[in-house]
Amino acid sequence: MARQAAVPIDLVVKFGGSAITDKCQMETLKEDNLASAADVIRKCVERGVRCVVIHGAGSFGHHHAKEYQVNAGLRGTIEEVKRRRHGVCLTRLSVTKLNHMVVRSLVDKGINAIGLPAAGSWLMDNGQVSRHGVTSIVELLDSCFVPVLHGDCVLDSSKGCIILSGDVIIKTICKEQKVNRVVFLSDVFGVYDKPPSQTDAEHISKICVSQDRRIMTDISTSESQYDVTGGMMLKIQTAMDIVINSGGTTKVYITKVGSNCVNQICEGLDTGQDDTKSFTQIIHHQ
Amino acid sequence: MARQAAVPIDLVVKFGGSAITDKCQMETLKEDNLASAADVIRKCVERGVRCVVIHGAGSFGHHHAKEYQVNAGLRGTIEEVKRRRHGVCLTRLSVTKLNHMVVRSLVDKGINAIGLPAAGSWLMDNGQVSRHGVTSIVELLDSCFVPVLHGDCVLDSSKGCIILSGDVIIKTICKEQKVNRVVFLSDVFGVYDKPPSQTDAEHISKICVSQDRRIMTDISTSESQYDVTGGMMLKIQTAMDIVINSGGTTKVYITKVGSNCVNQICEGLDTGQDDTKSFTQIIHHQ
Repeated sequence: MARQAAVPIDLVVKFGGSAITDKCQMETLKEDNLASAADVIRKCVERGVRCVVIHGAGSFGHHHAKEYQVNAGLRGTIEEVKRRRHGVCLTRLSVTKLNHMVVRSLVDKGINAIGLPAAGSWLMDNGQVSRHGVTSIVELLDSCFVPVLHGDCVLDSSKGCIILSGDVIIKTICKEQKVNRVVFLSDVFGVYDKPPSQTDAEHISKICVSQDRRIMTDISTSESQYDVTGGMMLKIQTAMDIVINSGGTTKVYITKVGSNCVNQICEGLDTGQDDTKSFTQIIHHQ
Repeated sequence: MARQAAVPIDLVVKFGGSAITDKCQMETLKEDNLASAADVIRKCVERGVRCVVIHGAGSFGHHHAKEYQVNAGLRGTIEEVKRRRHGVCLTRLSVTKLNHMVVRSLVDKGINAIGLPAAGSWLMDNGQVSRHGVTSIVELLDSCFVPVLHGDCVLDSSKGCIILSGDVIIKTICKEQKVNRVVFLSDVFGVYDKPPSQTDAEHISKICVSQDRRIMTDISTSESQYDVTGGMMLKIQTAMDIVINSGGTTKVYITKVGSNCVNQICEGLDTGQDDTKSFTQIIHHQ
């Protein structure tokens, strides 16, 4: 496992799968959003921010992973194992295709982006990371490159294969290295008290979490009960884990691709009071 | 460094850059040749051959690597370093694009191919491999996947960055693991005594090398003096190194994509007497 580097990682940015791809259209980019996200990274790099990009899969990979039940591992009948192994290859072809597009988009902006798929270097054991590639990430950062990782199919010593999610990659980086900020770029302005597609959904600006994992949300912006479900809850849990594990030293935000404040958040600047509805911050309650 | 596995690698196949791409046309595949090479792997895998594929870059990568002098490393003026770092990214975009096409071609044939770029996991120090990814290759083989590697730009602790050639990857695999056969799939039937484009070029069926690196070629097929230059000489040197370093236990062949004997060679079967003009074998002189 890598030792903590002397120089912290300023920023880990997650390009959400929903933010950069159209989840309803197989292998379809949201090109404007990807270009916008790439612009954020460009500005950060120009200001000397050491940053790592992780992207979700969205409509790349998920379809094959689900159809072939990749996450069930290489277990079952010979036919099932054969089919899933093929599914791993199809899923990887799809996510590496997206990774190539993301890296291309970043390099087109003049960013020194290097795609770094996890398959091969990362290894899992029954769903837990048993070998990671954080050393490679730090080496690339030290050489002024921007590593671009993504959720991937990797080998699992117990199950055969498994999906390593982008969120687990981020948590591992934060565990192994000092990270100043983690920003999740979503297709919405952060966390809402109900699905943001509902007209009465209220934006939540701050979610306070205690060291013992209790949520003490500041619901001043919301009258309804805090009740977030599905994908967003998973994202909040990742965000909470990072905040709690770092004892609050890692700042964590969820915001929308193209929001007014995204550059300030990513560069670690003051966002001002007016932009509090543009992002959700996960805050460590001392 | 990886320990020698109990189960040897049956076959390492190099898809030559000239064999699978049109070197004169930027980023252009020779699709028929790639499909033919993929067919060879399919037949091998169906017969239970444990194999690894390495491909050259051809018209993918080389252009950028040359234009930006990537191999000169991240040294020089600030502007030169900046330019070369960008060149590394462009070169990697091009070679990973080809890797994706090669993996796609193999998966389309039903082969469980997994792309495994070297950047990140492999590390060089002044042109020598100081960290390799052979463990990942063995893990994928043990899980019945076919790892697909390629020449790549990697970090170099002394020079900043460097080109890690497919040939060096092959030599490293052969050093770290027992490998039964290495086959170079070229665009010609092996080694000739002069450029094969010349009408009087004679095919050389066997090249005998001694442990002290002397070439004692069986030039029975050739009346002219043994005089091979350029890219082919480099290939022969790699082939010789593998034969010599293994003390002759690794069989090494150079043949043409689509030649009659390529399946027999790859599967380790007798090629028969009539096919000796279809390949060159590098033989260890005891």
